[in-house]
Amino acid sequence: MQIDGVEIEDTFAEAFDIYVSKFLITAATQKFAKIAADETVGFGSSVISCPAEAGIDDYVPPNKTPDGRPGYVVMICHPKKDELEHQLIERIGQCVLTSATTAVFDAMGKEADEQLKIGFKLKFFADGYDTEGKIGGRTIYKIPLMSGDFIIEGELGIKKGVAGGNFFVMAENQASALLGAEVAVDAIQGVSGTITPFPGGIVASGSKVGSNKYKFMHATTNEKFCPTLRGAEGIDCEIPEGIEGIYEIVIDGVGEQAIKDAMKAGISAAVKVPGVKRIYAGNYGGTLGAYQIWLTALF
Amino acid sequence: MQIDGVEIEDTFAEAFDIYVSKFLITAATQKFAKIAADETVGFGSSVISCPAEAGIDDYVPPNKTPDGRPGYVVMICHPKKDELEHQLIERIGQCVLTSATTAVFDAMGKEADEQLKIGFKLKFFADGYDTEGKIGGRTIYKIPLMSGDFIIEGELGIKKGVAGGNFFVMAENQASALLGAEVAVDAIQGVSGTITPFPGGIVASGSKVGSNKYKFMHATTNEKFCPTLRGAEGIDCEIPEGIEGIYEIVIDGVGEQAIKDAMKAGISAAVKVPGVKRIYAGNYGGTLGAYQIWLTALF
Amino acid sequence: MQIDGVEIEDTFAEAFDIYVSKFLITAATQKFAKIAADETVGFGSSVISCPAEAGIDDYVPPNKTPDGRPGYVVMICHPKKDELEHQLIERIGQCVLTSATTAVFDAMGKEADEQLKIGFKLKFFADGYDTEGKIGGRTIYKIPLMSGDFIIEGELGIKKGVAGGNFFVMAENQASALLGAEVAVDAIQGVSGTITPFPGGIVASGSKVGSNKYKFMHATTNEKFCPTLRGAEGIDCEIPEGIEGIYEIVIDGVGEQAIKDAMKAGISAAVKVPGVKRIYAGNYGGTLGAYQIWLTALF
Amino acid sequence: MQIDGVEIEDTFAEAFDIYVSKFLITAATQKFAKIAADETVGFGSSVISCPAEAGIDDYVPPNKTPDGRPGYVVMICHPKKDELEHQLIERIGQCVLTSATTAVFDAMGKEADEQLKIGFKLKFFADGYDTEGKIGGRTIYKIPLMSGDFIIEGELGIKKGVAGGNFFVMAENQASALLGAEVAVDAIQGVSGTITPFPGGIVASGSKVGSNKYKFMHATTNEKFCPTLRGAEGIDCEIPEGIEGIYEIVIDGVGEQAIKDAMKAGISAAVKVPGVKRIYAGNYGGTLGAYQIWLTALF
Repeated sequence: MQIDGVEIEDTFAEAFDIYVSKFLITAATQKFAKIAADETVGFGSSVISCPAEAGIDDYVPPNKTPDGRPGYVVMICHPKKDELEHQLIERIGQCVLTSATTAVFDAMGKEADEQLKIGFKLKFFADGYDTEGKIGGRTIYKIPLMSGDFIIEGELGIKKGVAGGNFFVMAENQASALLGAEVAVDAIQGVSGTITPFPGGIVASGSKVGSNKYKFMHATTNEKFCPTLRGAEGIDCEIPEGIEGIYEIVIDGVGEQAIKDAMKAGISAAVKVPGVKRIYAGNYGGTLGAYQIWLTALF
Repeated sequence: MQIDGVEIEDTFAEAFDIYVSKFLITAATQKFAKIAADETVGFGSSVISCPAEAGIDDYVPPNKTPDGRPGYVVMICHPKKDELEHQLIERIGQCVLTSATTAVFDAMGKEADEQLKIGFKLKFFADGYDTEGKIGGRTIYKIPLMSGDFIIEGELGIKKGVAGGNFFVMAENQASALLGAEVAVDAIQGVSGTITPFPGGIVASGSKVGSNKYKFMHATTNEKFCPTLRGAEGIDCEIPEGIEGIYEIVIDGVGEQAIKDAMKAGISAAVKVPGVKRIYAGNYGGTLGAYQIWLTALF
Repeated sequence: MQIDGVEIEDTFAEAFDIYVSKFLITAATQKFAKIAADETVGFGSSVISCPAEAGIDDYVPPNKTPDGRPGYVVMICHPKKDELEHQLIERIGQCVLTSATTAVFDAMGKEADEQLKIGFKLKFFADGYDTEGKIGGRTIYKIPLMSGDFIIEGELGIKKGVAGGNFFVMAENQASALLGAEVAVDAIQGVSGTITPFPGGIVASGSKVGSNKYKFMHATTNEKFCPTLRGAEGIDCEIPEGIEGIYEIVIDGVGEQAIKDAMKAGISAAVKVPGVKRIYAGNYGGTLGAYQIWLTALF
Repeated sequence: MQIDGVEIEDTFAEAFDIYVSKFLITAATQKFAKIAADETVGFGSSVISCPAEAGIDDYVPPNKTPDGRPGYVVMICHPKKDELEHQLIERIGQCVLTSATTAVFDAMGKEADEQLKIGFKLKFFADGYDTEGKIGGRTIYKIPLMSGDFIIEGELGIKKGVAGGNFFVMAENQASALLGAEVAVDAIQGVSGTITPFPGGIVASGSKVGSNKYKFMHATTNEKFCPTLRGAEGIDCEIPEGIEGIYEIVIDGVGEQAIKDAMKAGISAAVKVPGVKRIYAGNYGGTLGAYQIWLTALF
């Protein structure tokens, strides 16, 4: 299948179950909301070695937030529910509560499978001086700080979502692949309920599970897809002719449909970039993940 | 003591020993270097609950970097050396190696007490396909990726530095205290070898050690310094008359002198903001930290 | 009238007729769309001495633009229609056509009073090598450039709109007034069809018409509202007691209702900032402008 | 001549005399200094149709500015001295004086050929309420505003500089040429005394003088260098084989050496980008400009 002259490989992205949280960080200004959100989602590209996968889902203007201030919806994801709860407490406690002028509200709403008492637990920081209140029908706690009060909703919803939606942008050189990946990330930013947790939304280092050589490595470079190893001894290169640059986009989302929407939006944008030649996806032969998202079925 | 009509309290910041790493992340463009640096230093405000304290020290233009590309010097700090090494491997491996077009070089240089073999360890990701080389006299490893090669210097220097340098900006309202804190952070940004690890460099939630009420809490709000608790029952408020907003700046640095320079630069900037009334500092009576940095001795 | 304890003065903003254009700049990435938009709206705060009043109305994600790429809606305004046309040709020709990967589409749609043949005129830059085409039912021209093709819709709609909507944020100090102004600008950013053309959306220098002392000056500082002149000789200070900082927000919009919506959104946000004490508005006694927008009638 | 495998054409950039101003905009925070600088240099890509050529030269940290606040050095250029003076008064008056918390200081220093009384003229805005003072040995005027005082140095230095330094980045596709141009701009940003006045520093639309077809056009597309016109009827294409994307960098500077340094820095950076194949430069056969800067002589 071809779109705008770009080959869409007849293969699938293999995706996994993951627990997903989605909450809103507001602040006095958009700038301070962004600062808090960025700190909160940092060191959050992949649970291979990061303590969570995290990203910014969306900006919400003041007239659409519970407290009438600008905010960012943030998603934090983890395969284990108790680890997700732990991450929520640590990341909100250390990265949002400590940030100037912030507040936290649930953003999962009715989609939630379950409510975690994150606000309830964080209020112990107030050492007994917290007060309970209501904002727009939501139960919130006020935690007095040196700078004023931090406000957090008592419960934040989580749900079972999907991790590891993905596609590869393959191009005739690295710059085209990179520009293709950038435009894909911009497009996915517009799909609600999804994040691209890697830095800038882009994966420079698509990997394989395990290692051929080192038993202690859980993941190593995907040598068959490294352009600089083409023709090297012992390499069975699988990169199609004419491809010299490959970037991967990895997507976590609130559900399979959100992942599909994001993949479609991203691929549709990437194929418009001159020099982008093929769209590919990563899988493990269907042996590991609960979801198989076929590229050609998206269109 | 007064500067520009602002009272500089006759007290001291109590600071601690910490292990500090300092390395340079370069990328094709300043934008991609910033993306990688931001991801690397995220979730890194305080080791109370973050896995490290981290921040951006400085921007380095292309004509001053080993590979002629724009870069950011990043500092990662931890009280334990083995935890620092672990954080370097995880954060560089997950947040820089995965970022588009990046490379990593040592930035501690001759100041280092010790060299950690971070590049040497990360090269196992290449699954045997790494190559060794030289850039500007430095030993580097090339790790083939799907997008091209990731380059990292074999060893990164660390040293014993100082954590927890601090001062409080006290103002007649929250907005003045916040603007005072912002200008202080901008000023400290210019002091090489220091970072302000909290979100945007500012702490909204200065805390006390332990809790009056909950045995399981290691740190809780500093209720005697919470403006919204002034006059509340059981509160022995220590906020001077006329102060309604307080933000704290916390500084980690390569040494005591760097911390002093940063505190002086930050305070000098903050006192210029209308509405800022007092500069204060946090300590534990000298019982916990190795360093006592007296505010009035800075000037 | 009071909102959240802030006095809303019983006065009105006096606003004027102005011609307004509204168009969409798209580019390969959000970054390049923003670069083009920023250059296009620069040197565009007030027609007192700028060649136009200009600003960014809104970001539009890729799935909502005619060419499926990210874009910014930009508004350019001028009291004279022929000057507006001239500015459109110069600003699009010099700031968008010259920008990497850009395209321009009409964003006024059915609201337009009139169509200007901006694309038709700019295509002469192609020196005869332009081609006509269609994108999403719109007639566009392709202008070949060294970097590829620049695409612009043949006609861009304009309409009679309103300039000079305004309010003053008065606070107990400069920092509070500034923070109040910043949050107001963030809130107005969410109101479609309006811009705040001054730098960062904020006016530091509210002025009076003419001069008491210099015949050659068309506008000079509003000395009765300058906090640093309170109590100076010959000054009949009109700043209420307790006010030490004042910033003005000026709004241009596609119509009176848009201005009202923006004023309401901005004031509602500003009154939430601690230290903000009064909201005021600027007028000329109703002698100059076609519109009187009463502050208290907004709520 | 080849650098890193990229062909450096044996040709020259033809550059022109221009009057250059260089001044420093400081503000309370780096953010507000940037807002003012961006507004000031907007609509300033080329004097073909913009009222000036303008750009940001450099960021200056608080400890290096006359008033101890963060700032940006801005350059504004015009072929005519009286027009430059006019632009300085209008742009500083409308874009800096109106910006929150700003001040303006000379940044040309001893390099100046001449001093223009810009501060002296702008102080009439104070309507007689200005006061004279000294900051770091500089004569400054304080102009009372609603938000506080605007401070500007009495005289700003200008000098004869050089406009139109340039080179072309030619690549195997548009994405590589664009990435090559981006890295060149990042590198030139580090060369003091130079600006790249086009949007984002990059010219997408290199032009020829005049028109083959329309007498009323002063500049039109350079059809011989448009990749999408290769092979079109009547086109004598001069684009080398294998080149599909071309971006131009245009540089203005305080003198010929600064332009040379900037061209060398930019080219050195661009040739490192995969897919960049040739560096070229634009000239008029030496008939129009005072300076011939040969590419190969830079290395």
